[in-house]
Amino acid sequence: MTVFYVICFDVHDAKRLRKVSNEMENFGVRVQRSVFECHLESGQLQELKRRLDKLMNPTEDQVRYYNLCGKDKLHIVIDGSGRVSADPDYNLL
Amino acid sequence: MTVFYVICFDVHDAKRLRKVSNEMENFGVRVQRSVFECHLESGQLQELKRRLDKLMNPTEDQVRYYNLCGKDKLHIVIDGSGRVSADPDYNLL
Repeated sequence: MTVFYVICFDVHDAKRLRKVSNEMENFGVRVQRSVFECHLESGQLQELKRRLDKLMNPTEDQVRYYNLCGKDKLHIVIDGSGRVSADPDYNLL
Repeated sequence: MTVFYVICFDVHDAKRLRKVSNEMENFGVRVQRSVFECHLESGQLQELKRRLDKLMNPTEDQVRYYNLCGKDKLHIVIDGSGRVSADPDYNLL
C-alpha cells in the first residue's frame, strides 16, 4: 500500500541540488522547484531517505517529509497552474 | 480552531517572491526558502489566499496549500536541521 508524501527540500549547493532533484525524480512527480509529490510504499520511502542522506550536507541542507492521509489529500488547494499528482498505480488502469 | 497548513510556493520573479515571502511571514513560520508552516483559522486562510492572489502572477507562479490533520502532523519527518513549527496558541500558555 502506498502513502502520499509531499517532500520539500532546501539544498544550498547547485551540484547537490541537481543530484537530489535527479534522485527525487526516480520516486515521484516534481510539482514545484523544490517540492515533489510521491506515492511510496514503506520500503521505497526508506530507500529514498537512504539515498538522499548520502547526497545532502546535513548541516546546510534539509528535507521535510509530509505524509498526507486520503482525506487531507482531497483538500489540497493549488492556486496558479498545476494539479495534484496522481498515484501511478491508478494511471496504469 | 486552527488547522495546520504546509504552504509551498514557486514564484518566478524576485520582486514578487519578496512580496509573497513578506506576506507569508504575517501568517506562519518559514521552514524552507519557499515553504511555510501555518496554523490558520478558516478566515485567516481565506485572507492569506486573497492577499497572495493579488501578489502572484497566476500564469507563472503557483502556491500549494496542504492541510495536515493532527495525526499526519505527528508523522512529519525532517532530515537535516530544523523542526516542526509549533502552534503559536500553545506557545502562549
